[in-house]
Amino acid sequence: MLRAQYATRGPRPADVIEAVEFTPAPLVEGQALLQVLAAPINPSDVLTLTGEYGMLPPLPAIGGNEGVGKVVELGPNTTGPAVGTTVLLPVGVGTWATHVVADAKKLVPLPGNADPVQLSMLTVNPPTAFLMLRDFVTLAPGDWVIQNGANSAVGGYLNQLAKLKGYRTVSVVRRESAIASVEAADVVIVDGPDLHKRVAAATGKAKIRLGIDCVAGAATDRLASCLAEGGTLVNYGRMSGEVCHVSPGSFVFKDLTLRGFWLVLWFRKATPQEQTAVFGEIAQLVATGKLSARVQATFDVREIKAAVALAASGERAGKVVIVPKV
Amino acid sequence: MLRAQYATRGPRPADVIEAVEFTPAPLVEGQALLQVLAAPINPSDVLTLTGEYGMLPPLPAIGGNEGVGKVVELGPNTTGPAVGTTVLLPVGVGTWATHVVADAKKLVPLPGNADPVQLSMLTVNPPTAFLMLRDFVTLAPGDWVIQNGANSAVGGYLNQLAKLKGYRTVSVVRRESAIASVEAADVVIVDGPDLHKRVAAATGKAKIRLGIDCVAGAATDRLASCLAEGGTLVNYGRMSGEVCHVSPGSFVFKDLTLRGFWLVLWFRKATPQEQTAVFGEIAQLVATGKLSARVQATFDVREIKAAVALAASGERAGKVVIVPKV
Repeated sequence: MLRAQYATRGPRPADVIEAVEFTPAPLVEGQALLQVLAAPINPSDVLTLTGEYGMLPPLPAIGGNEGVGKVVELGPNTTGPAVGTTVLLPVGVGTWATHVVADAKKLVPLPGNADPVQLSMLTVNPPTAFLMLRDFVTLAPGDWVIQNGANSAVGGYLNQLAKLKGYRTVSVVRRESAIASVEAADVVIVDGPDLHKRVAAATGKAKIRLGIDCVAGAATDRLASCLAEGGTLVNYGRMSGEVCHVSPGSFVFKDLTLRGFWLVLWFRKATPQEQTAVFGEIAQLVATGKLSARVQATFDVREIKAAVALAASGERAGKVVIVPKV
Repeated sequence: MLRAQYATRGPRPADVIEAVEFTPAPLVEGQALLQVLAAPINPSDVLTLTGEYGMLPPLPAIGGNEGVGKVVELGPNTTGPAVGTTVLLPVGVGTWATHVVADAKKLVPLPGNADPVQLSMLTVNPPTAFLMLRDFVTLAPGDWVIQNGANSAVGGYLNQLAKLKGYRTVSVVRRESAIASVEAADVVIVDGPDLHKRVAAATGKAKIRLGIDCVAGAATDRLASCLAEGGTLVNYGRMSGEVCHVSPGSFVFKDLTLRGFWLVLWFRKATPQEQTAVFGEIAQLVATGKLSARVQATFDVREIKAAVALAASGERAGKVVIVPKV
């Protein structure tokens, strides 16, 4: 059995993580041994390796926050999904591994006939898109939403969810070459000067009340300049590596609200019923193929260094997913 | 009769404005002629002269947005406050003048025995402080509020209002020499690195849920770093001349909300009843001396260039007020 482990953090994720052999201790009551089928590398995983994330596990740690697996063995006197069942792995167990041991009570059964790679990305990016679209501004069918970094996985999920709800979307990307990677958008525009004028022209001067920013830096203010008076800008990332810039011209004179979104805080505050409702809806959409993310490449656990290096690079056109070889 | 007029806008306010003689047309029904007793120069007036404000009057224009006057004459068949009454001048009439003509219906009588210089500052800064303290976070006696640029007139009003409500205040200033100009604060601290640590030490690690920023730039983020999870940061100015910087570390991971406040939008949205309630409370406090602003210097209308130059400089210890000589 193999897992991707790191004992230090640093600016080059590939330098700090490596695949190591391990043998799990015999299962005790309440535990399950799972074979990992797929586990993605998210931007938050990269920031965890560099030490820039808002919550860092004690070291040494196993990489990977989400994924799907198959039940291989249940501990003594343990009830849980039957051996062979495909399940969602609990958040934070260290999923970049061939096998993980987890609390059997926390395993959520998934349809066995759906694509495990798509299912493996269910816990982090789709609810981020879902909640940002639902919890900040009350939208009606026909309303517009604008986002930057729209070729990201969250960006694709957000556009797909918006389309399912009947909203219209403007997708802003940072380079011409990213246009082809944007999914399901009504309007795609390359970021730059006069963004608000080009957006106004492309949408017929629509009053856009919700903006979603994962780039930060001056891009935050350009997105803010596209919003209508009283609108809300939600930031959830900093792909530019910079802090958000917001000019008073945008948010004082136009009464904009700037919010941050972090799924971790939602998990802390949402009741189990709320969480089940959200994940039930998302799991259904993913399992039926209505919600999906592009995959750039899959890697074995052995190839973890190449996998995190690709995930950390800006020139991807899809997600990097660990698919352990058996 | 004299008034301060400008026909162009530019980076040096003193270069574009000048005192000119004028003779008002004979009053028509509904109008009143007022002798101006006092009219302050606010930061928003300076930004109006430089062209950086969110709302700009057509040119040529008379400077000055607020002030108090005395009724000199009423138009034919006009009812209004009797000749000799001290009144609040309507917003935006161009108050840096020896006399103004105004709509008699819009004149609000004021106590004749209160200081006209203090009354003249009633319309802009006190409601800004009052509403920022009231409308964004529900505070209880004992709660803390933090603000920067706290030696400003709004800063002083905010501290005085907070004290009246039983809130505790942290006042952040940009230079040692400004400490002496801060009014009514519980804690005064000079801005700089580790601000959040020094604030935590000075307040016994108080959970501060409301921050008020008029400096912008990196100062916005330093103020944000002092707020508790779920807190709100309200920006209403940019004394640094920079855009606001906010790091995801502050507002994504801590779930902060960043809002802008602009009194002009409140005037547009608040009902007459709401406006009367707010100004009734403030006028009472100013007239009885419970709410006041420091005055750095007073100038005649003739000295308008020197007055706006001083108002635009960073090294003031109080407000600049036009007090026309008669």
